[in-house]
Amino acid sequence: MARVLTPRAEDFPRWYQDLIAKAKLADNGPVRGTMVIRPAGYAIWERMQAEMDARIKAAGAENAYFPLFIPESYLKREAEHVEGFSPELAVVTHGGGKQLAEPVVVRPTSETVIGEFMAKWIDSYRDLPLLLNQWANVVRWELRPRVFLRTSEFLWQEGHTAHATREDARAYARKILHEAYEDLMVNVLGIPVVVGLKTARERFAGATATYTCEGMMGDGKALQLGTSHELGQNFAKAFDISYSSAEGGREHAWTTSWGTSTRMLGGLIMAHGDDNGLRVPPRLAPIQAYVMIVKAGDGVGEAAAKLRDALRDAGVRVALDDRTDTAFGRRAVDAELRGYPVRVEVGPRDLAAGNAVVVRRTDGSKAPTPVADVVDAVLAALEADQQALHDEALAHRRSRTVEVSTLAEAIEAAATGWAMVPWSAVGIAGEAEANGQGVTVRCLLRADGSVPDNEDEPDLTAILARAY
Amino acid sequence: MARVLTPRAEDFPRWYQDLIAKAKLADNGPVRGTMVIRPAGYAIWERMQAEMDARIKAAGAENAYFPLFIPESYLKREAEHVEGFSPELAVVTHGGGKQLAEPVVVRPTSETVIGEFMAKWIDSYRDLPLLLNQWANVVRWELRPRVFLRTSEFLWQEGHTAHATREDARAYARKILHEAYEDLMVNVLGIPVVVGLKTARERFAGATATYTCEGMMGDGKALQLGTSHELGQNFAKAFDISYSSAEGGREHAWTTSWGTSTRMLGGLIMAHGDDNGLRVPPRLAPIQAYVMIVKAGDGVGEAAAKLRDALRDAGVRVALDDRTDTAFGRRAVDAELRGYPVRVEVGPRDLAAGNAVVVRRTDGSKAPTPVADVVDAVLAALEADQQALHDEALAHRRSRTVEVSTLAEAIEAAATGWAMVPWSAVGIAGEAEANGQGVTVRCLLRADGSVPDNEDEPDLTAILARAY
Repeated sequence: MARVLTPRAEDFPRWYQDLIAKAKLADNGPVRGTMVIRPAGYAIWERMQAEMDARIKAAGAENAYFPLFIPESYLKREAEHVEGFSPELAVVTHGGGKQLAEPVVVRPTSETVIGEFMAKWIDSYRDLPLLLNQWANVVRWELRPRVFLRTSEFLWQEGHTAHATREDARAYARKILHEAYEDLMVNVLGIPVVVGLKTARERFAGATATYTCEGMMGDGKALQLGTSHELGQNFAKAFDISYSSAEGGREHAWTTSWGTSTRMLGGLIMAHGDDNGLRVPPRLAPIQAYVMIVKAGDGVGEAAAKLRDALRDAGVRVALDDRTDTAFGRRAVDAELRGYPVRVEVGPRDLAAGNAVVVRRTDGSKAPTPVADVVDAVLAALEADQQALHDEALAHRRSRTVEVSTLAEAIEAAATGWAMVPWSAVGIAGEAEANGQGVTVRCLLRADGSVPDNEDEPDLTAILARAY
Repeated sequence: MARVLTPRAEDFPRWYQDLIAKAKLADNGPVRGTMVIRPAGYAIWERMQAEMDARIKAAGAENAYFPLFIPESYLKREAEHVEGFSPELAVVTHGGGKQLAEPVVVRPTSETVIGEFMAKWIDSYRDLPLLLNQWANVVRWELRPRVFLRTSEFLWQEGHTAHATREDARAYARKILHEAYEDLMVNVLGIPVVVGLKTARERFAGATATYTCEGMMGDGKALQLGTSHELGQNFAKAFDISYSSAEGGREHAWTTSWGTSTRMLGGLIMAHGDDNGLRVPPRLAPIQAYVMIVKAGDGVGEAAAKLRDALRDAGVRVALDDRTDTAFGRRAVDAELRGYPVRVEVGPRDLAAGNAVVVRRTDGSKAPTPVADVVDAVLAALEADQQALHDEALAHRRSRTVEVSTLAEAIEAAATGWAMVPWSAVGIAGEAEANGQGVTVRCLLRADGSVPDNEDEPDLTAILARAY
């Protein structure tokens, strides 16, 4: 078979770009740094959204929608926040054919405008917790854009909540972190993320604690796939989000925010893709089984359509490819590129023997299978390959992670993977030194793997890596 | 009961604003003309989206996402199109801390950028039809904004398709019009829309034909709830969307576009709302049955929770209101405002007699019902009230529509409702005259009620009305 993609080992970034182009997942937009998400890519995003949205709702948050345009003055109310964002802002100066009296900013995130409305909506402790989420586009001007990973406009969900106490805010930020983000990433995306605490240096602007889900990509680098923040009372004070307590006093609320984005599509590609293209975990895949007519022949079309229907009836997301005017080999290469978990190839020769061929994308195995057994074989493959992709990614992460005891060793190890090193051996000075060499502290963990409350806890482990 | 809303008969626009505020559907955003869609409003929008998305996918279109920012130059390629939009544009002049070399426009619609990519993606007749849809926010600067009806930013779906022939494009524009838009509006939103052709004057900028769904609101005015456009080869020529035909020549494609938006939320309110608040048709309602604990008492909480569970098991979207620390009367008023189709009131007195009270929002009826019969009663009410709301709206539309034969009569009739008048009695001059008096031609119909291909067909009927 002719080489379709630049092999990963040869040039990983090039492989990534090739894959996105050839699998028709996305294109660059006409304005620098923007992207067009094509149907094949967007269908995966829709499945991520649906799975995430269900988890967010199960955690009690409600969806709402806040405006794209934010008055410039809002961003200035929380000093640290504006510093974090100002170089990235897109500013609208003209509207309705006139220069605007006050320029408006295209939201880089909605903390400020949501803070303003929380202040209006919250009156008493009875109004708390207020648990909001929105699905929206945001804009952060990117000088070195990369499709899905860093784009000037991206799609995301941003949750914003207000609570009566610090404890309640913390518990909710962690609930989303584990029950929505970690669960989705591990059990649907099949990416064995490490969940930990960001250092002060890596924290979100305005947050008192940032929790993160970090995934290892195929080249050993880290990708931050989602973050959940405790904002303390910083935003509540800046926007006067306060409530009358049961005791009658007036108190500032404690707020959180949390987000995941189309960046997860980049993570999916880089965590599971191979030299033949994307591999989509079955639970996520918009098309789980791809029934292909190899070439026209006696009863082939009918048999393929019957299999499609039988798979659909069994609850499988299925598509039928009957484009026999395009060469089968080309269509098979496309199916590999797209990463459909299972292909069912129906051709005259196999069919004459009563078989269709079940091809598994995860390991490339091809099994001639009696037509009557195809549905069971597909169901079994989908179940097994969800786990197989996860386990392969976990084995990869383990093989590329080393435990070391000094900063120098950690920086060296980060050239090819992740380093686990005592946080006490790094510290603030060590972190700055690592940063100077392109290595960052991805997160801090407790000895038992759980998530610390702050970086001053004893015996923390730091994960150092290069990152996207 | 104290008056909650300004009565419709007293001041319809005020009633509309009151309802949106008191049912907590939306707020005005901080930047003029923008809106915040609150959870109660957004939940209805999500249901509209889900129902619409399923219909669009059933019609074969795939979702994609195109950038928010469009180079200013794109809009200038199709002269009529830019004229239609230029006074409404929001322009970004600064990004990443610098003035941009070329200002970018915040999309007022995505025809132009999608045209650009269709040109890249379409090569041969095999690539046609190309059927795309996107869910997105768009911006059109509004000088006289009104929540849901005219806002500077709104949410919508915009479909864009390319076809090999005019006939195929026309058939698809009409397929969406009837199978997605009309079907959703009539059978889910319960709004008996009239579907017809826009006159040249009312046509979308750049279209060769615009089809529309027009609903009558509670005050007799019309609201355009969705439009589907044939764009001829105008955009295909401006963006060079061409294909090599089976015969080997190079041909321009024929394109369509079609959209529905958060404006449907405004239409829903004004079509079905009454003096007590919103009435949401059961098929659309995010909460179909609202189980309320009237006040705490022996076994009340358990009985209410059991009913909630039984309703959920029967496939009903249900919520439980157990906030007994808030007065029941206030909660009941809120439930009326929100328009939940059925309330199930569970209180100690009725429960002692083995009953709960089933309250139907549509007609206000209250029926004490044996607890064991509640699920059946709710299911029957949901079924009946979907139809009842539709039929009430249809009766209203008929009672406020008159057939007349002259322009003068039509303009007079439009003061209180819709006028049906021979298009030949109006014509282009008559249409301008009507416009001068605040009356527009909403659409043109054939004698049998079907949708004409163009306004020059004989014996067309025009519907004249005031409109939002």
